Amino acid sequence: MASSSDASYVRLMRSKPLKVAPEIEALIALLARVPGLGPRSARRAALQLLKRKDQLMLPLAAAISEAAEKVRACSSCGNLDACDPCAICAAPDRDDTLICVVAEVGDVWALERAGPFKGRYHVLGGVLSALDGVRPEDLRIAKLIERASDLEVREVILALAATVDGQTTAHYLTERLASANVSVTRLAHGVPVGGDLYLLDDGTLFAALQSRRPT
Amino acid sequence: MASSSDASYVRLMRSKPLKVAPEIEALIALLARVPGLGPRSARRAALQLLKRKDQLMLPLAAAISEAAEKVRACSSCGNLDACDPCAICAAPDRDDTLICVVAEVGDVWALERAGPFKGRYHVLGGVLSALDGVRPEDLRIAKLIERASDLEVREVILALAATVDGQTTAHYLTERLASANVSVTRLAHGVPVGGDLYLLDDGTLFAALQSRRPT
Repeated sequence: MASSSDASYVRLMRSKPLKVAPEIEALIALLARVPGLGPRSARRAALQLLKRKDQLMLPLAAAISEAAEKVRACSSCGNLDACDPCAICAAPDRDDTLICVVAEVGDVWALERAGPFKGRYHVLGGVLSALDGVRPEDLRIAKLIERASDLEVREVILALAATVDGQTTAHYLTERLASANVSVTRLAHGVPVGGDLYLLDDGTLFAALQSRRPT
Repeated sequence: MASSSDASYVRLMRSKPLKVAPEIEALIALLARVPGLGPRSARRAALQLLKRKDQLMLPLAAAISEAAEKVRACSSCGNLDACDPCAICAAPDRDDTLICVVAEVGDVWALERAGPFKGRYHVLGGVLSALDGVRPEDLRIAKLIERASDLEVREVILALAATVDGQTTAHYLTERLASANVSVTRLAHGVPVGGDLYLLDDGTLFAALQSRRPT
């Protein structure tokens, strides 16, 4: 029983190519490469798109084209926006003395949703990674050093993930930033707000204990 | 403690609108309506698209436009294809005496993957549903009766899901098909009750086709 259902599962996952129109096949193949969609959900998505051509499919094609044409990386901070410099770099009411360094644009969005940070950002475009072959010159580090060397900047916050690659990048940036006259800080490690204690890994619990504070 | 973590969870899930470029916002809003993507995964998908503009974003926009332009419902069976009649209707080596009635195009794909059926299809475009307000005239039923009345057709297989709506539709079609000189069969039980046809594994579909019975 188990082996027969395993076999059918394997057969299922092998996802035989469909004999459908090449236009549909190409659409499914590309949708399957969108993060969050796999081969099967791409098929379902393609069918729904074709079923709702006017309400969803054509507007989506237009939105993708429009965004692809207009949205650019900000030449200063690397954030994505339709204008350059981006809205955050151009905002007059933000603190020029603070630069928050993040790996990806999604991290900017996450920090903006959280709300408390009112300085500027710098998007590296990734983290250093020996495995993935990401070297310092692949990231927007030179531009960061240039920006941090501005006399007005007092502090650079490294908001990088507490992964091996993230921390390697943080160490590297700390060394590179030594020449600029800024203090370099990093996000506090600790127990995530709303997270269950028993689900946490040892490293996080250890860090949270080490940095415990009076209530 | 519980209330504070609940509150932050609610805050997180509320997904504050981002202050991003309207082009990005429009893209995320439309991606979030694609089946399989929610508001959060749509954001991630939008970022990945913008990051891989040439490899993924522009080809995807082109594929969506191309499919929207070229793919049409077959005027005979309702299947989606770039040609009309569709490849299955046009294939000379399929059995004209058998018509397999399905709710959606995805069901045709699922049955074609399963392999054993070599007749023609008829896609209803949904099932009767009192709740969703789907009436007989909203489905391609008239065309089915017309096709089934062809002297060559001997059997109509109702390959509809074993849900209340699917079975209601099967009953209705059985009555409507009484005038045509065909035997009406349905898929064998073995189709999980409440399961969607396009999610089924090939083995179950194969067995269900083999054991079809008169209604």
